[in-house]
Amino acid sequence: MIETHPFDDAIRLETVGTGTVRGRTHPEWANMVGPFGGITAAAMLRAIESHPDRIGEPLALTVNYAAPITDGDFDIFLRAARTNRTNQHWIAELSQGEDAKTTATALFALRRDGWADTESRPPSAPDPDGIPPTDPGLVRWTSLYDMRFVEGPMPGKDGRPSPSSTTTLWVRDAGRRRLDYPALAALCDIFYPRVYLRRGAIVPAGTISLTTYFHADQQQLDGLGSDFVLCTAHANRFTRGYFDQSAQLWSRGGVLLATTHQVVYFKG
Amino acid sequence: MIETHPFDDAIRLETVGTGTVRGRTHPEWANMVGPFGGITAAAMLRAIESHPDRIGEPLALTVNYAAPITDGDFDIFLRAARTNRTNQHWIAELSQGEDAKTTATALFALRRDGWADTESRPPSAPDPDGIPPTDPGLVRWTSLYDMRFVEGPMPGKDGRPSPSSTTTLWVRDAGRRRLDYPALAALCDIFYPRVYLRRGAIVPAGTISLTTYFHADQQQLDGLGSDFVLCTAHANRFTRGYFDQSAQLWSRGGVLLATTHQVVYFKG
Repeated sequence: MIETHPFDDAIRLETVGTGTVRGRTHPEWANMVGPFGGITAAAMLRAIESHPDRIGEPLALTVNYAAPITDGDFDIFLRAARTNRTNQHWIAELSQGEDAKTTATALFALRRDGWADTESRPPSAPDPDGIPPTDPGLVRWTSLYDMRFVEGPMPGKDGRPSPSSTTTLWVRDAGRRRLDYPALAALCDIFYPRVYLRRGAIVPAGTISLTTYFHADQQQLDGLGSDFVLCTAHANRFTRGYFDQSAQLWSRGGVLLATTHQVVYFKG
Repeated sequence: MIETHPFDDAIRLETVGTGTVRGRTHPEWANMVGPFGGITAAAMLRAIESHPDRIGEPLALTVNYAAPITDGDFDIFLRAARTNRTNQHWIAELSQGEDAKTTATALFALRRDGWADTESRPPSAPDPDGIPPTDPGLVRWTSLYDMRFVEGPMPGKDGRPSPSSTTTLWVRDAGRRRLDYPALAALCDIFYPRVYLRRGAIVPAGTISLTTYFHADQQQLDGLGSDFVLCTAHANRFTRGYFDQSAQLWSRGGVLLATTHQVVYFKG
């Protein structure tokens, strides 16, 4: 018997042609409309990292959510636009039939030793083991994670506007799948829309472009296993139907694993 | 006699085919290697905004610097991967001959009125008129801007390491060209590499991927004319040859015009 995990099921891809892989949506990853953006980012990254021409590790990924992916198969077309000695630039596009649903660019790179420093500091947070898990429950995919909110949980039915858009939470995979680059890419989209918190209510909102910078190298990821990751996000400006979010993902040991940014549409 | 400005010269494009425009490098915009990344971002954005199918205003732009653009002509291939009712997703690629030099995705969108708030605050800074202009002078393009450093000027020959990577400066176009979206896109790359400041020295470094979120609408830009913009940037983590930078651009009146992020390679 082969043990499977919903994350691996959702990013499983088969090669159907030169530079084309096929995947399919999984009901457990359903969001409000279409799948969780994080799982789509993970599938795009997996498509690239499993390409035979790929060099190095993920350094940057931008995913543009052009239209909802409908239930069923999707194809990802990908190509290395440029391969240099130490980095490689990818372009990828996810389609269903003739319809482009997601576009992406990614940068893979060889890392080398040298001067290093982490200038940002992690938010202060109590140990995750002492915080009860919460499933925001608005959409299906959140049950696949073990979330421990430190600050800014999702507002309930009696929610009130908050002056701060900051949410900080510990997250790990509910099935204790170990953290790899696709899983880290997905975690970067773990946050419910910041406008919910500011407005104290659920309003129509969705990520339209997501950019992630991966700071953790493979060895650092391997060392984390399936432990909690401390995720913190805030918005800078909400205006005329859009806002931006910036976020950081930290290991329990204080390693900045990724910084990630997105622009989100909202109504109301 | 037609008055021209080096910025307009550098982003002048002619249509040479369906979805293909041609531009050329301008010596005044020379950087260490190839042109200033900001002017390339501006040309990519201009190519899209002048495309007959374009709808709305720029909302997000990601530009990947795959290889240095050599002096001379370049072609930008662009297409709308998806046009929705209120937004449009673009893919663009800048090539010289068969060589891909720059890739980009962009999101244009119609803005609509609704709830708004700016949660970030501008850095405190004295009035620009009381600060003497400084040209860092390391590369040619900086003379095209009027820069007034508030914090974190570029280290000189006797530079010392700094514990902070923050630079804050007022910038306006030296020829007082008015601020439009391409000019704002260029300003997002105005900062010299944060590693110079931390190390107190000039080391090899270059932006490899730049993402900008445009918060200012057309009317807000029009109201700025050619006034100073307050630009502030910091890095989060430097590790194994790469660091990330996050920055904000503010109007003198306290409007957050853009938030922008990049990943940069460095040596040493």
